[in-house]
Amino acid sequence: MKGYFTEEGSVEAVNARMGKQVDPRLAEVMACLIKHIHAFAKETKLTQEEWELGIDFLTRTGRICSDERQEFILLSDTLGFSMLVDAINNRRPPGATENTVFGPFHVKGAPVRQMGENISLDGKGESCLYEGRVIDLDGNSIEGAKVDVWSDNAEGYYDVQQPEIQPKWNNRGIFVTGSDGTYRFIGVKPVSYPIPDDGPVGQMLASLGRHPYRPAHMHYLVTADGYQKLVTHTFVGDDAYLDSDTVFGVKKTLVAPFQRVAQGPTQWRSLFNFVLAPTEHPE
Amino acid sequence: MKGYFTEEGSVEAVNARMGKQVDPRLAEVMACLIKHIHAFAKETKLTQEEWELGIDFLTRTGRICSDERQEFILLSDTLGFSMLVDAINNRRPPGATENTVFGPFHVKGAPVRQMGENISLDGKGESCLYEGRVIDLDGNSIEGAKVDVWSDNAEGYYDVQQPEIQPKWNNRGIFVTGSDGTYRFIGVKPVSYPIPDDGPVGQMLASLGRHPYRPAHMHYLVTADGYQKLVTHTFVGDDAYLDSDTVFGVKKTLVAPFQRVAQGPTQWRSLFNFVLAPTEHPE
Repeated sequence: MKGYFTEEGSVEAVNARMGKQVDPRLAEVMACLIKHIHAFAKETKLTQEEWELGIDFLTRTGRICSDERQEFILLSDTLGFSMLVDAINNRRPPGATENTVFGPFHVKGAPVRQMGENISLDGKGESCLYEGRVIDLDGNSIEGAKVDVWSDNAEGYYDVQQPEIQPKWNNRGIFVTGSDGTYRFIGVKPVSYPIPDDGPVGQMLASLGRHPYRPAHMHYLVTADGYQKLVTHTFVGDDAYLDSDTVFGVKKTLVAPFQRVAQGPTQWRSLFNFVLAPTEHPE
Repeated sequence: MKGYFTEEGSVEAVNARMGKQVDPRLAEVMACLIKHIHAFAKETKLTQEEWELGIDFLTRTGRICSDERQEFILLSDTLGFSMLVDAINNRRPPGATENTVFGPFHVKGAPVRQMGENISLDGKGESCLYEGRVIDLDGNSIEGAKVDVWSDNAEGYYDVQQPEIQPKWNNRGIFVTGSDGTYRFIGVKPVSYPIPDDGPVGQMLASLGRHPYRPAHMHYLVTADGYQKLVTHTFVGDDAYLDSDTVFGVKKTLVAPFQRVAQGPTQWRSLFNFVLAPTEHPE
C-alpha cells in the first residue's frame, strides 16, 4: 500500500511519513499528537461542518491575538491543559506545597519590601495580614527564601491592567525570610475576576454553560537555593467560584484560611506555610 | 473534592464543568477532545517549554491567515486530519469510487463544455485524453451526470493562482453525460506542485523531514440525481510523489492509468470510470 491513506490506517500513514533524521523527541510528540487527534475524529465521527467550525474557531482565536492578548493561552487554560502541563512538570513529594498556574500578571523586578509592609498602595478594599513560614519537608525554617507576591486590587484588576489608575507596584512585593523562615505582609483580601471573555474563548465558555471567573487568590513565587521553584496561589476559602475556577487552578491543599480579625491593624488574617521540596528530590 | 483539579482526574475535572443545558453533540465532541488532548500531554509528559512552542506555533499559524491564505486548513491537511474527516463522512459501498479532499482551487460556475472539448486554453504542456463512464454499482450508465473537472496547468499553477497570466477558466469545465454515461475531454497531463510552504506549516514539514508536494492529479466533482456527490481526484500513476502526497490525498483505487498514445490528437490517454453510490445506501 506504499503509505496510501485509509481510514483505518490513518495514523500509521501520517506517522510513517516522518523522516529518519527527525529529532527523536519531536517525532515522539508529533506521533502521539497525530494518534490522539485522529482518534478524536474517529470516536466522534466528526462531520465536515464540525471540522469547518473548528477551523473557523482556530482562525478567529488567532486573529484576536496581539502583543497584549494571548487567546491561545486562554484556550489552553480554560481546557485545563495549562494546569495539566504544570502538574506533570511539578510533581512534588508528599507534604510539599503544590504548584498552580503562573498566570500572565507577574512582573519581574518588584520592590523588595520590609517584612510586615503593606503592598496595597491604593487603599482600596479590605486589608489582610498574610503570614506563615517557609520550611523544608522536615519542618525546618528556610532562611533567605524570596517570597514574591502579587494580587489584583479590591476591584479585580492587577496594576498592569490599569497603569494609569493604580500606583506602580500596587499589590506587589518581594519579602526575604530571616533565620526563622517567617514571612509577613499586609495586602488586600483579593476578589474574584473574569478572564477576558469578549473573544472566541469567551464564546466557547458561554456555549459550554461555563462562567469566565477565577476565584480570589494571592499569587506566590517562592524561591530558595537548593529548593524547587514554587509557583502557586493561595485561595480565599469562602469564594463563590472556588469549585469552578475557569482555568482549574484550585487544588484542595491551596485553599487557605482567611479569618476575620476582631481587633488589630487588618480586617483579615491568612496563615499559610510554604513547604519547599529540595531540587535533588526525584519525581 | 468538588471538581478541584488533580493530574489523575484532569479530564473529569474539565468535563464535569459543562452546563446541563449544553447542546448534547457539542458536549460529546468537547468531552472527547478534552480526553484526547489531556492524554496527549500525559503520554508525552509534555514539558513547559514544549507547551510554549505549541502556543507559539498556533499563534504564528493564526497570524499568517488571511482572505487568501488558510494556514489552519494546511495544518489539518498535512496532519492527515482533513483526509480522515473526508473518509469518515464519505464511506462508500464496495465498488463505488472513493472520495478524496476537495482542495481550495475549485471554482463554481465553470463553463459547460461540449463532450470531447479541450479545457487547456494556454496550450502548454502535454495533452491527455480523459475518458470513461459514469455508472452505478451495477454498471448501468448514468445519464445527465455533471462531471466538473479542474487541474493545474503544465507549470503547476491553477488559473486562480495566476489570474493575470492564465486564460479565464483554463483547465476547467463541466461535461454532462448522455444516455451512454460516457464522458470525454482533453486536458493537460497535470504536474506535481508544492502547497504554500513559506509559513509555519512549511516549517513544520521541514522539521519532520517531509516535502510539501502533492502528486499530479485531475480533480473531479461528479453529481447526478439520486446519487451521492463524488469529490475525488485521479492521480497520474508514474508521479514521483504518488506515495508521499503531503496532504495524504492518494488512495490506491484513485491511481489512474496514463498511457502514451502513439498516434492521435493527444500525447496521453487516461481511462477511468466513476462508480456512484445511491444516496439511499446506508453507511
